[in-house]
Amino acid sequence: MNNAFRRSVLQTVKQEFDGRQRVVIENVSPELDGGKYPAKSVEGGFVVVEADIFVDGADTITAKLCVRHTGASRWQHSAMATTGNDRWSGTLCVGSPGSYEYTIEAWVDHFETWKKGLIKKTEANQDVSLDLLIGALLIDGGVARSTAATAVKLKLFADALRSGEREESVEAALDSELADLMAQAPDKSCAALYEKVLSLTVEQKKAGFSSWYEIFPRSWASEPGRHGTFKECSRMLPMIAGMGFDVLYLPPIHPIGYAKRKGKNNALVAAPGEPGSCWAIGNSDGGHKAVHQELGTLKDFTEFVTEAESNGISVALDIAFQCSPDHPWVKEHPTWFRWRPDGTVQFAENPPKKYEDILPIDFESSDWQNLWIELKSIFLFWIEQGVKIFRVDNPHTKAFGFWEWAIASIKEEHPDTVFLAEAFTRPKLMARLAKAGYSQSYSYFTWRNTKHDLQAYLHELTTSELRHFMRPNFWPNTPDILPDELQSGNRTTFTIRMVLAATLSSNYGMYGPAYELCEHLPVAAGKEDYLDSEKYEIKQWDLDRPGNIRAEITRINRIRKDNAALQQTNEISFVRIEASEGHEDDYLMGYVKRSADNSNIILTVVNLDHSNTRGGWLRFPLELFGLSHQHPFKVEDLLSGMSYDWNGEWNYVEVNPWVMPAHIFRVTLG
Amino acid sequence: MNNAFRRSVLQTVKQEFDGRQRVVIENVSPELDGGKYPAKSVEGGFVVVEADIFVDGADTITAKLCVRHTGASRWQHSAMATTGNDRWSGTLCVGSPGSYEYTIEAWVDHFETWKKGLIKKTEANQDVSLDLLIGALLIDGGVARSTAATAVKLKLFADALRSGEREESVEAALDSELADLMAQAPDKSCAALYEKVLSLTVEQKKAGFSSWYEIFPRSWASEPGRHGTFKECSRMLPMIAGMGFDVLYLPPIHPIGYAKRKGKNNALVAAPGEPGSCWAIGNSDGGHKAVHQELGTLKDFTEFVTEAESNGISVALDIAFQCSPDHPWVKEHPTWFRWRPDGTVQFAENPPKKYEDILPIDFESSDWQNLWIELKSIFLFWIEQGVKIFRVDNPHTKAFGFWEWAIASIKEEHPDTVFLAEAFTRPKLMARLAKAGYSQSYSYFTWRNTKHDLQAYLHELTTSELRHFMRPNFWPNTPDILPDELQSGNRTTFTIRMVLAATLSSNYGMYGPAYELCEHLPVAAGKEDYLDSEKYEIKQWDLDRPGNIRAEITRINRIRKDNAALQQTNEISFVRIEASEGHEDDYLMGYVKRSADNSNIILTVVNLDHSNTRGGWLRFPLELFGLSHQHPFKVEDLLSGMSYDWNGEWNYVEVNPWVMPAHIFRVTLG
Repeated sequence: MNNAFRRSVLQTVKQEFDGRQRVVIENVSPELDGGKYPAKSVEGGFVVVEADIFVDGADTITAKLCVRHTGASRWQHSAMATTGNDRWSGTLCVGSPGSYEYTIEAWVDHFETWKKGLIKKTEANQDVSLDLLIGALLIDGGVARSTAATAVKLKLFADALRSGEREESVEAALDSELADLMAQAPDKSCAALYEKVLSLTVEQKKAGFSSWYEIFPRSWASEPGRHGTFKECSRMLPMIAGMGFDVLYLPPIHPIGYAKRKGKNNALVAAPGEPGSCWAIGNSDGGHKAVHQELGTLKDFTEFVTEAESNGISVALDIAFQCSPDHPWVKEHPTWFRWRPDGTVQFAENPPKKYEDILPIDFESSDWQNLWIELKSIFLFWIEQGVKIFRVDNPHTKAFGFWEWAIASIKEEHPDTVFLAEAFTRPKLMARLAKAGYSQSYSYFTWRNTKHDLQAYLHELTTSELRHFMRPNFWPNTPDILPDELQSGNRTTFTIRMVLAATLSSNYGMYGPAYELCEHLPVAAGKEDYLDSEKYEIKQWDLDRPGNIRAEITRINRIRKDNAALQQTNEISFVRIEASEGHEDDYLMGYVKRSADNSNIILTVVNLDHSNTRGGWLRFPLELFGLSHQHPFKVEDLLSGMSYDWNGEWNYVEVNPWVMPAHIFRVTLG
Repeated sequence: MNNAFRRSVLQTVKQEFDGRQRVVIENVSPELDGGKYPAKSVEGGFVVVEADIFVDGADTITAKLCVRHTGASRWQHSAMATTGNDRWSGTLCVGSPGSYEYTIEAWVDHFETWKKGLIKKTEANQDVSLDLLIGALLIDGGVARSTAATAVKLKLFADALRSGEREESVEAALDSELADLMAQAPDKSCAALYEKVLSLTVEQKKAGFSSWYEIFPRSWASEPGRHGTFKECSRMLPMIAGMGFDVLYLPPIHPIGYAKRKGKNNALVAAPGEPGSCWAIGNSDGGHKAVHQELGTLKDFTEFVTEAESNGISVALDIAFQCSPDHPWVKEHPTWFRWRPDGTVQFAENPPKKYEDILPIDFESSDWQNLWIELKSIFLFWIEQGVKIFRVDNPHTKAFGFWEWAIASIKEEHPDTVFLAEAFTRPKLMARLAKAGYSQSYSYFTWRNTKHDLQAYLHELTTSELRHFMRPNFWPNTPDILPDELQSGNRTTFTIRMVLAATLSSNYGMYGPAYELCEHLPVAAGKEDYLDSEKYEIKQWDLDRPGNIRAEITRINRIRKDNAALQQTNEISFVRIEASEGHEDDYLMGYVKRSADNSNIILTVVNLDHSNTRGGWLRFPLELFGLSHQHPFKVEDLLSGMSYDWNGEWNYVEVNPWVMPAHIFRVTLG
């Protein structure tokens, strides 16, 4: 073969080239940025992989999905099937957390092609004697590719096709056993392999299903006025677990700077004795690898982590790559900061917010390699102390390249780590952080209140490419954000927002006591910051204060734990609810979620109007389950305990927000 | 620097890695299959390139588009600008046909970032003395990167910023000359380069704008009953050029087989003397590189090609990779065919069509390398005879890999070749052929008749990714396809379909005399084949037959030649035409096309109802041109010669199909 020709041929495709590989495999999904980034799944989960697969002419194709642990020598294969318009689909099932690879293999199935032709000719009563001889030759090929035992059986079929008895031969040709035997010995001599090996990150289960609760440990002292400790927080763990939370997120636990320390309500100067913001990290006691002395020792912390685990709770640490002016790095690594002509560093900002007590790190530092290593080592340090889940502060103000490298290399050794990006920023940046490795992302849910806005946002999250790599985490509040919607203090509104967060997204969280106690006063009109924010002072929480919604939260977290449908975000279908015939209701919003095998189906109906009972006709999408419009079925409201028989797709629902602003129906299709 | 760290860092990105390159460039368009396939443009054309470009934090970015001839050492740069939501856009202008490369470069523009901050602080009346010192330092950096002449000017600005006079300093800082000088000496030390170099195929102008006319030369004898010759066809060239066509497409001109030769109306057996189908290629006189003796010699053919060129017409040859059983290859290269146990080869099919006189080539031949070389050499042979345009028969029944290799390697040496894929097949296959290198594609236009179907099809072609690589060629008929719509024989319908083809798509064609003479009888009811098809017999065409639409065709081709707006396909906007207030008319269809610089604007209004005059209110989209709804403008109907003053966006139009079923308005916005 001509060398120039060979080179030229080889240029066209990267794999070992054989021009007889006629099958085309393209437009594979998921394939993020041409395969640069891995798709995501969770332990024991699955991924639906799709591709356009076709061949010149009218031949029949067989296609297989191939998966393996990254670096493993053998692929495992599973079947793909056509879904129309030359699109094929298959399901990857994955095991333990780690990195996986997948690709697709497909070939012209000459035996199946031949069989289809035979069936057509037989039905048209045409002469098939030549076809039977061709079939016998194809079976001979199968014999050569089979084990001895299979070969014996195949030979009998080849003989039958050569018998000369049309009826018997055709019957043998169409025998399903023959089809099975031939499928076991496919002719893959011209099989095409998709040109890319794609990657998949499988994470621990809490990456996909988690209920977060955020507390400031310093506010949880056993007696008023004192600085709380980890030991004291330990005593609250059964209560938090009892409410159904399984991730306990702590704001930074490190020494707090004295220089430019903030006072109550973000005052620029702290009064003596004020504790400051825990995000102003570092003083002479240490930086990101030290524990704030008043909280306890490092040992106290690791014991707290262990105690939490025994309550089924993972402790999540806040990692905030920024420094108080007192942080040891400022002196030890001055090149990590951008100094101005007056010998100062401009304080950090996340417009419009200003952090006068915090210095940002300069990711254009000439010493960026050592900076990256040190930042990564902070995660490794806390991983050694037993922490697996990290909530990262403002990752969108740090170099994207750093996250991509750091998360990938940490996960290589610690595949069970989970990273939540606190990136309340523009959509493209948020998505990039998720692609770069973040397991979960804070989202715009916090500001999506109307039926239209919520539906549009869920549509974007669950039907665009985002579904493959960005797992939203829905928070109705944070210590920084008391959204306008909650500032009325209406208890029902707090329940509505919690039900939405907990049933729309499998990952959700709340800034603890402030939420369940319906704290609602902003620092000023038009602001989203809390009045007397816990960021700047030690609070006392009366957890049993009347009007709290702890019972509702506990109930809804229980429902999440019991229903697989609510443990995933992407499979969601909004339903039509009509206020009057032909007119969609603006406040009653309903959605169906279902487990992968359809064994668990949850229909949530929320009344977004906190003060009026609303009723309407709801259309349940029976067609999603292959059932007729008239199919009768049962629904049980897991909140009220009431059960109903529904007859066909249209049913009347009513939600009285004074009793409970939602129904969470478990649907039994029977 | 730690080696393991370096390796780990290098794994993350492919280019020379510098962690300080903070800018992210992703989601580039066009980027076909992750950069595997080139986008397309034409000589002197342009390509709009878009990308998501952003950086951590709030810094300002500068981004440039880089383009070069493939293999050239230097990039040419042009500006990109933001279009919102972190999307950036720039325009690549390309020259002569050939292969180009493009990519994107972007960096944090510290000077612009600083300037924005300065403006904000100045407006808020804050102290800017420190900012001015920082600005002076940034200008010092510019001095170091500048030529001596520029440096002198920059130094003056740096001095001004250090003057200590707030007003003067700020004025100097905001001087546009300073901005220009700094833009000429950007700090690209941390510039990010997009990780892929993408490719662009630039083709000759007729790839993007062409009017095809198809004839069977054998029917163009100067006296009835004889087999026509190239010499005789030459005499018709001025007439064809006069009608405005610039590509003359000839079905295969090779020796026709005798074995299984087809007779009149696709009869399975030819009567003595019948000429057979010219797609049954090859007999003892030769195969794909020979000329059918009755047409003339190879020299006659090359003279015909030259004569056509002197009339502004490119001769396009039909390349059909298939053989009559008499083709020399059958004996010389038996391994190129798939033989059955009875010593025969199954004849070709393109379901539901059967070609009993044709043997298909086996692309799974063990001798595929030699087969590929021989097939490619056929193109090269005809290129040597002066042919540059090829219409390829049924490419979707040949291996896709072959086309990808053959077209790319032919275009490397002959960048001015054009390939039209006759792939009336499923959408994914059609698109793949275009990606694999075909310049133009036969399309589904032939069967799209209603306003809804036409609009939906144009929407798909011009707004999906197809716009970057698939150029449709609209044919209202072919020798194989007399669509149902034309079988009424209504002369107006023939005009309507021609106007649609010629104004919707910049590339269009017709199967010549049969179309202009409004031939309309099918071989049988429910069939699309012509009665007494020219495929199987020598025809006599009375070109002046009453009722022909030659004058209309000539006029419309003239309008296409005169109006750049009609010389491209993608920039099209359908307009609203209302039969009564609020109700879209089902038959009046209107669309605006415009040249790249908006200097030529054409509004076509077609009445799809061939027998009734229809009128309605048409909304011209003045907003596309940045004009108000009330803007007055002029339109001139290039078909009737009538001019109208229109006042604002809504205007009444009426189309009487008995006069002319369309208006083609040239719009002068004034």
